[in-house]
Amino acid sequence: MDCASDDEKISIISLFTDKRKGMIVSEMSSDELVDMLGQLGEDDKNAIITNMNVEDAQEVKELLTYGPETAGGIMATEFLAIKETYTVNETIDYLRQMTPGSETPYYIYVVDDKGFLKGVVPLREIISSDPMTMIKDIMIEKIICVPVDMDQEEVAKVFDKYGFMAVPVVDHRGTILGIVTLDDVMEVMKEEYTEDMFRLAGLDETEKLSGSVSDAIKSRLPWLLVNLVTAILAAATVSLFEDTISQIVALAIFMPIVAGMGGNAGTQTLTLIIRGIAIGELSYENQKDILRKETLIGLLNGLALGIIVGVLGYFWVGSFAFGFVIGLAMFLNLVVATISGYYVPVILKKANIDPALASAVFVTTVTDVLGFFFFLGLATLMISFLI
Amino acid sequence: MDCASDDEKISIISLFTDKRKGMIVSEMSSDELVDMLGQLGEDDKNAIITNMNVEDAQEVKELLTYGPETAGGIMATEFLAIKETYTVNETIDYLRQMTPGSETPYYIYVVDDKGFLKGVVPLREIISSDPMTMIKDIMIEKIICVPVDMDQEEVAKVFDKYGFMAVPVVDHRGTILGIVTLDDVMEVMKEEYTEDMFRLAGLDETEKLSGSVSDAIKSRLPWLLVNLVTAILAAATVSLFEDTISQIVALAIFMPIVAGMGGNAGTQTLTLIIRGIAIGELSYENQKDILRKETLIGLLNGLALGIIVGVLGYFWVGSFAFGFVIGLAMFLNLVVATISGYYVPVILKKANIDPALASAVFVTTVTDVLGFFFFLGLATLMISFLI
Repeated sequence: MDCASDDEKISIISLFTDKRKGMIVSEMSSDELVDMLGQLGEDDKNAIITNMNVEDAQEVKELLTYGPETAGGIMATEFLAIKETYTVNETIDYLRQMTPGSETPYYIYVVDDKGFLKGVVPLREIISSDPMTMIKDIMIEKIICVPVDMDQEEVAKVFDKYGFMAVPVVDHRGTILGIVTLDDVMEVMKEEYTEDMFRLAGLDETEKLSGSVSDAIKSRLPWLLVNLVTAILAAATVSLFEDTISQIVALAIFMPIVAGMGGNAGTQTLTLIIRGIAIGELSYENQKDILRKETLIGLLNGLALGIIVGVLGYFWVGSFAFGFVIGLAMFLNLVVATISGYYVPVILKKANIDPALASAVFVTTVTDVLGFFFFLGLATLMISFLI
Repeated sequence: MDCASDDEKISIISLFTDKRKGMIVSEMSSDELVDMLGQLGEDDKNAIITNMNVEDAQEVKELLTYGPETAGGIMATEFLAIKETYTVNETIDYLRQMTPGSETPYYIYVVDDKGFLKGVVPLREIISSDPMTMIKDIMIEKIICVPVDMDQEEVAKVFDKYGFMAVPVVDHRGTILGIVTLDDVMEVMKEEYTEDMFRLAGLDETEKLSGSVSDAIKSRLPWLLVNLVTAILAAATVSLFEDTISQIVALAIFMPIVAGMGGNAGTQTLTLIIRGIAIGELSYENQKDILRKETLIGLLNGLALGIIVGVLGYFWVGSFAFGFVIGLAMFLNLVVATISGYYVPVILKKANIDPALASAVFVTTVTDVLGFFFFLGLATLMISFLI
């Protein structure tokens, strides 16, 4: 049978010890093995592959050719495959011969002579069916499978949608190559979530808490420098109004409030949008509604904060005009913040840039620059009422 | 047998239609059903339970008594349980009698007369064993189970650690009550990640992209108001130095750079620490090393940015003293930022407050207030060199 060899557990003949963790690698499944090899240097990798038997080495080499973030990169090649012409009894005999330890002991895949995937039989169905039943009579033919080059994030969405424990991976002709199991997908989810969270905070997604200082600086300093450019743009905006500030120093006191609150409101919206994009909640159909909703939230939150800060400014400085200027600036900046919190990730996504990667920087630039501009600009326009 | 009734699929006799989604609820498993009931109002909930048969209603009512975020709240009561005195053949007969659709068709749990969990047999072991083998001879006795009141996040960590597809849930006497499957855990992980991400951004974790405007404002406005208090504190700090600013307006231009960059550096550290706490990477053993590492990163990044901003300040204003003041303030604020980025989430965790919930606000308060204080304070001390 074509698929039988795929089912053998890849065993490394020479046990070896991972230098750092002291872990003995012997009976790893093919996907775990490939993950581990991917983290080693070329020399170590080749040393291990050389020590494997020819068939296993061939399989591992093939797995290494798939992108690490694709279905092929996370699949295991250990699965149970039988022909549709088998009976239940023959299947049980076949299962008894198999070495234990297959990655999915609960689904059996059904293939034709050429290895094309025809259906699936849950293991339980085998037990509860009459021994003489033909497999083709009990198999489920409508089978969800994923192409070998599908991005791992898309694979995770398939699991999320259908609630499977395992999904077969096929090539473009429909030949089954391996399976992805739910625990692999959990790893993918963990990676993707950490990536989003880290990128939002300006960290490289590969940074580890236990990593080296130099790796940490390589992860963080570039983002701080990008943010510095933003900060300089904001400073340049303030410098346009040096004259106004020199006349009314209270402006310098209230300036950070307007910019900072805009940044906070913008971050709220962009986090919601980034999450919505990641889990597929934001679609072509609802995006206009979401934009309308966010704009309305910006208007209402802006109104609330504009009034509060306006009253605060009035009492602090003792000038009605000052209260009006800061209240209006706050209102305008909150509206701009929520709108840019919506548009920045959406536009980045359209440009095929990960929204989590750069959204925060862009939105903060907008809220800082415009926050200062609205506040100091309005003050300049109304300067005669302020002094 | 004691556990047999637990295995029956809970079936709602009267099909009914969910008003909003038009979904027909009929053959849901108990955990899905309880999840759904939890989202309905009291009247709808009671109407459904009243229409169920007595036994199923009893089971659902019991499940509803467990906290929704505990093992009991996410478990299903459909599992396969047999006695250890069964033979493989008897087990197969038993499985053939069972209605299909159990939540775990791949593990069979072994219990004694009182329903106490004794072991587990993988379904595949049943198929490949001799029909006359006793279950107690092939069952795995060392079984990982979780108590019914364990927090769902801890349950997720158990799955992560052992790589299981399902874990049995027991009461304090060791009686099996249900099982949690990996797909339930994936839902938990999704919730927890979204919660962390949203809380970091100052969003209520229940806010939905498609939710109402009033819900969104209830989610966001309180956080904006908390941040406003922070911003007012920062403004009050600036106001201490009104005299200095009125003499050197350039201070107002550079002020936001110092505070903003501190905020960015602090957010980097706190995100890493919050993630480290969530996935258990930060432990009692390594916390001193991590603090030392973060402090060193703060010193080095502070040095780099202090020099860059110092040079920038020198050329912009044309004063060596000004460059020195802003460079030193930047350096100090970056060190404080990374250290508070470490301490704030660690202290919140010790106080049993979710670090994701309040860390950002505290760290920003520190970096804003101290950023302004360092910069304007140094400028005041060195005022004779600056004008």
